Amino acid sequence: MRDSSIKHYQLFDALHHDSLLAMSFLNEICGRYPEAISFAPGRPLEDDFNHELLSQYLETYIDYLRRKLNYSEREIARVLFQYGKTSGIIQPLIARHLANDEGIIADPDDIVVTVGAQEAMLITLRVFCTSTRDVVLVPEPCYVGIVGAARLLDITIVPVKETHGTLEVKSVAEACESARKEGLNPVLLYLVPGYANPSGVCLSLEARLALLRYVSEHKLYILEDNPYGLFAREGSATVATLKSLDSEKRVIYVGSFSKTCFPGARIGYLYADQHVEGFAGGKRISDVFSSVKSMLTVNTPPIAQAVIGGMLLQSDCRLTTRNRRNIKRYSDNLLTLAKALHDNFSDASDLSREVNWNLPDGGFFTVVNVPFLANAAALERSAQRFGILWTPMQDFYLEKGGERSLRLSSSLLSGEEIQQGIKRFKEFVISEVALQQHQ
Amino acid sequence: MRDSSIKHYQLFDALHHDSLLAMSFLNEICGRYPEAISFAPGRPLEDDFNHELLSQYLETYIDYLRRKLNYSEREIARVLFQYGKTSGIIQPLIARHLANDEGIIADPDDIVVTVGAQEAMLITLRVFCTSTRDVVLVPEPCYVGIVGAARLLDITIVPVKETHGTLEVKSVAEACESARKEGLNPVLLYLVPGYANPSGVCLSLEARLALLRYVSEHKLYILEDNPYGLFAREGSATVATLKSLDSEKRVIYVGSFSKTCFPGARIGYLYADQHVEGFAGGKRISDVFSSVKSMLTVNTPPIAQAVIGGMLLQSDCRLTTRNRRNIKRYSDNLLTLAKALHDNFSDASDLSREVNWNLPDGGFFTVVNVPFLANAAALERSAQRFGILWTPMQDFYLEKGGERSLRLSSSLLSGEEIQQGIKRFKEFVISEVALQQHQ
Repeated sequence: MRDSSIKHYQLFDALHHDSLLAMSFLNEICGRYPEAISFAPGRPLEDDFNHELLSQYLETYIDYLRRKLNYSEREIARVLFQYGKTSGIIQPLIARHLANDEGIIADPDDIVVTVGAQEAMLITLRVFCTSTRDVVLVPEPCYVGIVGAARLLDITIVPVKETHGTLEVKSVAEACESARKEGLNPVLLYLVPGYANPSGVCLSLEARLALLRYVSEHKLYILEDNPYGLFAREGSATVATLKSLDSEKRVIYVGSFSKTCFPGARIGYLYADQHVEGFAGGKRISDVFSSVKSMLTVNTPPIAQAVIGGMLLQSDCRLTTRNRRNIKRYSDNLLTLAKALHDNFSDASDLSREVNWNLPDGGFFTVVNVPFLANAAALERSAQRFGILWTPMQDFYLEKGGERSLRLSSSLLSGEEIQQGIKRFKEFVISEVALQQHQ
Repeated sequence: MRDSSIKHYQLFDALHHDSLLAMSFLNEICGRYPEAISFAPGRPLEDDFNHELLSQYLETYIDYLRRKLNYSEREIARVLFQYGKTSGIIQPLIARHLANDEGIIADPDDIVVTVGAQEAMLITLRVFCTSTRDVVLVPEPCYVGIVGAARLLDITIVPVKETHGTLEVKSVAEACESARKEGLNPVLLYLVPGYANPSGVCLSLEARLALLRYVSEHKLYILEDNPYGLFAREGSATVATLKSLDSEKRVIYVGSFSKTCFPGARIGYLYADQHVEGFAGGKRISDVFSSVKSMLTVNTPPIAQAVIGGMLLQSDCRLTTRNRRNIKRYSDNLLTLAKALHDNFSDASDLSREVNWNLPDGGFFTVVNVPFLANAAALERSAQRFGILWTPMQDFYLEKGGERSLRLSSSLLSGEEIQQGIKRFKEFVISEVALQQHQ
């Protein structure tokens, strides 16, 4: 054993948390079974991905700098190549998108462009959690990104169980009260109000207004993460973002272009209109966010911003219009998946009675409850023997929970793949139940 | 006063540190005096920046994926547009650059591409500092990026004074011993061995070997940050990187393409070949780095990586060759600056005796000592009345220090601008001395 090898306990502790290791395992197993039908990753459709478009998007943005903003060629080169403003370069275009698609009227100076929504979450946690007593409330099952960001900063997460297909104010209030009894100080409530990952839950307008009232009364802030908001299922109405309803300035809004444009740009942003007092770096909370961002990544690559800027310009900053075909596909896929599950699990058998699922109002994810442990070992058997991949729901729980359910993502599949995949899934379920009865 | 405004003390404390606020002020003042001759920012030359090149670099990289790696068009699109590997896509090209330019033979799997060197530093601090007792040693005057990263993670920095134009092992040993006496545990020693920002110090081969011996004996690691290493002044020999001398695997190497390619790509990387035991995510320290990176930015924008990849391919991964003309310019500028200072401050006057400076062996920065307080107020007068900008050295000290010195960056200026700037600088110095005598 070499002297240079480092024991794991000498390294950052949070890395050893189960859900993070589970993600590594999931990536690893997806890599090992590339031919499997994969219901695992929450990825957007790839039909529009064509590398020749990149130069076109860039050219569109450069043309905008040249003709609309009267930049010289030298200034254009400097914006794209040199160090630049920490807050970013495409905030005016993001503001137009927010007005067109989300009903949010934003001052571009209140926007900070980030390296994906992940950096935006990390910045917000860092700014708002100032003592070890400050905690973040997160609906459970949880998106792993917020868990990772909090662990990186050693910030405690308090889970709030989703109940009755929503996040009830009662649950938030109970979690807050019990945290306070333990001497903790709830500061932020993280939410994906539209078609949450992994549960698919969409909060109703009433639920959103009730949560806004609660945080106003109790001086919390909401961190609203909205990557899927534009992807309502056909027949389901889009619900207003919390930020558009935020008369008391209690919401920090995190946006992402990973699903509405493409993930590889790694472009997200923070929009927040709170004012701050006594901070020498500026009067807006966005100035504080920029200060923290400068310690993380200095600024977001302008070339990646320019590509997204070009995409926004080409669609007149209207991403609902731009995504019309994809929104239809995501909706069709959710319905195809629900029908395939119904077709395979609706007879009067014991098995069918024990398999059930939700039909989300939009987004990428469906949760299926099964009568066996949907863990890593089951996933390995599913991949190897039946050629399908999915995500164990237990990976989205902080401690216990989700052991007998799994997440199916239908976003990236064709209708045929979904039907074929669910046929295989039934065989897998039968096999797991038999295996369990043997043991 | 609105209820929604947030008091500064409710926000992250580290933001209120002087040196970070000083950076905001510096940016702000540079923005207010765009016509001034600016010795302030450490920016690379802009002559090669031309937006039409971006598409060419991209095409070169895409062609490499297609012809060398036999990627299909669909695979190329997926690499550039979809979510991708956290560790990056251009590690094999970075490994070739390291072999060609830095004498480092790296396994590409030991490299993680990051959003600039800033993210690389933050990742390393997070991985190595596991308890509040773990501290990082940093030469003083300090680069603000490492200070910011440490503050973001609430990690204590222990300054080690640079003395006699170097970082002496004796000083490191004393700092370690006194930290240990206070119950602290020195874990990492941060270094910019070649032409440090701000001091310009270049460590000799002997100094590097001595530091390597020290950290080996005392079980520390060195975080080697090398953005300027290729920019040796004419007549000055390049010194081997610590990583190329690192037989005991005590060095974590941080690279940056911000100075050798362009800053706007925001592409840096970590190279480290230590092995880890007991980490479920992999056996390499790079696997641990990737886990932490996944919580920060998920992955580095592939489009930005592809642009740098294309630049590397176009120069056969030889950045010394690629930068030959710029290296000459940086060297000429250091010499022009030294000569201009000499021409203006070499008479027998009291003033000239009190103004002195170093002549660094390379890089961007020269330090000038002056007989007055070189603070923010002096900078404001310098900009307003004499049309020149510079950086107060006190911004690079954790507490006291540097009050009567300033940093001049000559990288981005022409010879004429330097000469003109130093003439103005002399007038400014005369004015400050007179002002001081008045008070």
